Amino acid sequence: MTGTNLKIDAARFWDTIEASAAIGVGRQGGLRRLALDAADAEMRRLFIRWGEEAGYGVTVDRLGDIFLRRAGADDSLAPVLIGSHLDTQAAGGRYDGIVGVLAGLEVLRSLDDLGIETRRPVEVVNWTNEEGARFTPPMMASQVFAGRQTEAWALARTDDDGVTVAEALTEAGFMGDAPVGGRPIDSYFELHIEQGPDLEAAGVPVGIVTGGYVARGMRLGIRGDNAHSGPTPMHKRKNALVGAATAAVAVDEIGWRYAHADGKATVARLEAWPNKPGILSSEATLFIDFRSPDAATTAAMEAEVRAALPDCARRSRTEIAIAEDWTFGGPAFDPALMALCRETARRLGIETLDLMSQAGHDAYHLSHLCPSVLLFTPCEGGVSHNEREATTLEAQAPGVTLLLNAVAARASA
Amino acid sequence: MTGTNLKIDAARFWDTIEASAAIGVGRQGGLRRLALDAADAEMRRLFIRWGEEAGYGVTVDRLGDIFLRRAGADDSLAPVLIGSHLDTQAAGGRYDGIVGVLAGLEVLRSLDDLGIETRRPVEVVNWTNEEGARFTPPMMASQVFAGRQTEAWALARTDDDGVTVAEALTEAGFMGDAPVGGRPIDSYFELHIEQGPDLEAAGVPVGIVTGGYVARGMRLGIRGDNAHSGPTPMHKRKNALVGAATAAVAVDEIGWRYAHADGKATVARLEAWPNKPGILSSEATLFIDFRSPDAATTAAMEAEVRAALPDCARRSRTEIAIAEDWTFGGPAFDPALMALCRETARRLGIETLDLMSQAGHDAYHLSHLCPSVLLFTPCEGGVSHNEREATTLEAQAPGVTLLLNAVAARASA
Repeated sequence: MTGTNLKIDAARFWDTIEASAAIGVGRQGGLRRLALDAADAEMRRLFIRWGEEAGYGVTVDRLGDIFLRRAGADDSLAPVLIGSHLDTQAAGGRYDGIVGVLAGLEVLRSLDDLGIETRRPVEVVNWTNEEGARFTPPMMASQVFAGRQTEAWALARTDDDGVTVAEALTEAGFMGDAPVGGRPIDSYFELHIEQGPDLEAAGVPVGIVTGGYVARGMRLGIRGDNAHSGPTPMHKRKNALVGAATAAVAVDEIGWRYAHADGKATVARLEAWPNKPGILSSEATLFIDFRSPDAATTAAMEAEVRAALPDCARRSRTEIAIAEDWTFGGPAFDPALMALCRETARRLGIETLDLMSQAGHDAYHLSHLCPSVLLFTPCEGGVSHNEREATTLEAQAPGVTLLLNAVAARASA
Repeated sequence: MTGTNLKIDAARFWDTIEASAAIGVGRQGGLRRLALDAADAEMRRLFIRWGEEAGYGVTVDRLGDIFLRRAGADDSLAPVLIGSHLDTQAAGGRYDGIVGVLAGLEVLRSLDDLGIETRRPVEVVNWTNEEGARFTPPMMASQVFAGRQTEAWALARTDDDGVTVAEALTEAGFMGDAPVGGRPIDSYFELHIEQGPDLEAAGVPVGIVTGGYVARGMRLGIRGDNAHSGPTPMHKRKNALVGAATAAVAVDEIGWRYAHADGKATVARLEAWPNKPGILSSEATLFIDFRSPDAATTAAMEAEVRAALPDCARRSRTEIAIAEDWTFGGPAFDPALMALCRETARRLGIETLDLMSQAGHDAYHLSHLCPSVLLFTPCEGGVSHNEREATTLEAQAPGVTLLLNAVAARASA
């Protein structure tokens, strides 16, 4: 393959992006396609139909991950896998995740157009519940595929209405019968919009992600006591909502103290019970996370959070405990794959920039299973997880072209 | 009537309290009987059955208020009305509101036992949605009955699932055909547990409420912007959840600054959207209220809240607006009815204490329609709006006895 300059069908690629943008349109014209909801199911069926029409093998595993497979000359070899996700945030954009899956489809179709038979099979995967907007945590299915969590763990996660992943899969019709992972994968390629402003600012069309922030997440449990909000004097109050708010403000302030080192602290979700006028809440839950480019800074932020919580509890007269905590990020991308992408880009005349990833991606988990690489493409103003997320075909085409050429090279090496 | 000493059937009264305590049992043995839910509907049917069995006239109005009417010698006269509510908080107690309605029923039954024909009719009412735990605001139906809000306004209120009061009434089978109010009422008596510790501390069985705290409520609307919680640097964040938490902490602190003057500030309810991991929330709503025994202090608290909000907005980089605000409390109870209750209690040998009310009650609204009086009975430790709310028949019986004698006197005066 080396030395060739394969071309995608840019218009066809963009048609798939626009077809996707019509499924699950959000309040402000973006997308609302929560994992396994009706819109996600419709998008999945379209993705499968595209695969079937092209004659690819279609496999759905027990977590609803969908694989389109284009056979290789030696179909017994481990496949090159390209993937990302078609689900979105509750008020999500048209490109986050979607560009990566549909770029993968375009790679397969372009190989067909060009009559190229790769040595290895090439597969494209849509991972279930990458966003974590319906079921916590994000990157749910890819971490099971990579052997970092069990299938049973994922199947038992619940949404806000208490619906389990297993029930949602069955209802949506995507509880497949293939095992989740447990098979050799040659390599994993993911293309994703940057969700940050650096490529646009540099005027460079493709980022090669060298690593990712180490992020820590926590679920805080806050306990107070119900009481009538009228008669209960301040000194007898134990309002769990005040406890959660106090912790939220403290966590946000820690983010600001580390902003000079690109540290970030996020107050992501607050729930109180009963959370009603007339009554002080007895229970609250607060999801927080914090991250920075280096592990020592993230550790220092964590130490500050842990030190702040007892003070928040004292000030709000509630009990605050860390009910659960987790780490994500810190992926190890493959030097040989990164070199292949840089060299391919140089040959094609596509400029690239080495970047750190700040958000989590399925590639983080895959990097523990097989050589993996993550490519970024621009998005306007760095705006993402927002219905105003925007980009153009012109901005995306170089990345998709690079993906085609790099995958073709790897699959025939 | 003056000079008589009428007796209630204390055991029968307590049987009704216990029958009520078995309908809609909460997680910790209290009650969860949200307005017009299945448990509330069951309690309402039992209340009507008790009325029918005793031969009282039963009327349900278009807001589901249920009136049991015991005829008077001159049935064309305006009735004496006794009322409170059978709905509860989400984690409510067995006595709040319930004692008042069932004390009213016991008054009617005792008048039957004693063969007393009052000159005026006597009615007992169960008001719909006093708690405001399902539909905001509290004391919903009584304020319409008193002509302080329109029927259409109440019918259009929605619960968290978007169900309107009109739909809930229809579903529960309590959309009656009687007009809401618009008829003369001679006087209104309400008996209610104190929801505070003063009677218990003083060892006095009945409180005569001379007035109520003036309380101010606000719904704050907080606007931020959605963004990905990973890549977005602190200085680009506008997290509405942080805005709401900052305002919540500020409001709570204002409560503490006025605690010396018995001021209270409550953070009652916080909602954010989309309130999900991975995304900064773009919208939040915060319900707050603050109150004190005197109007000037409450006004000073309000001024501090209004002054604090712009600073909260600046610090959290969000927009914070007062979307709605309201006043409640400050009732004007009737001097003649209070004197009647004091004099009747003195004659019966029941000690009373003049008290201010700190919570809102249906009697607040009725006091704008007709001469009204509010009597308090003890509750253990002042604990209320809590499943641990507790009291005894011994603690309640003096209040119910006083109610019987005072109502009998008023209805035949």
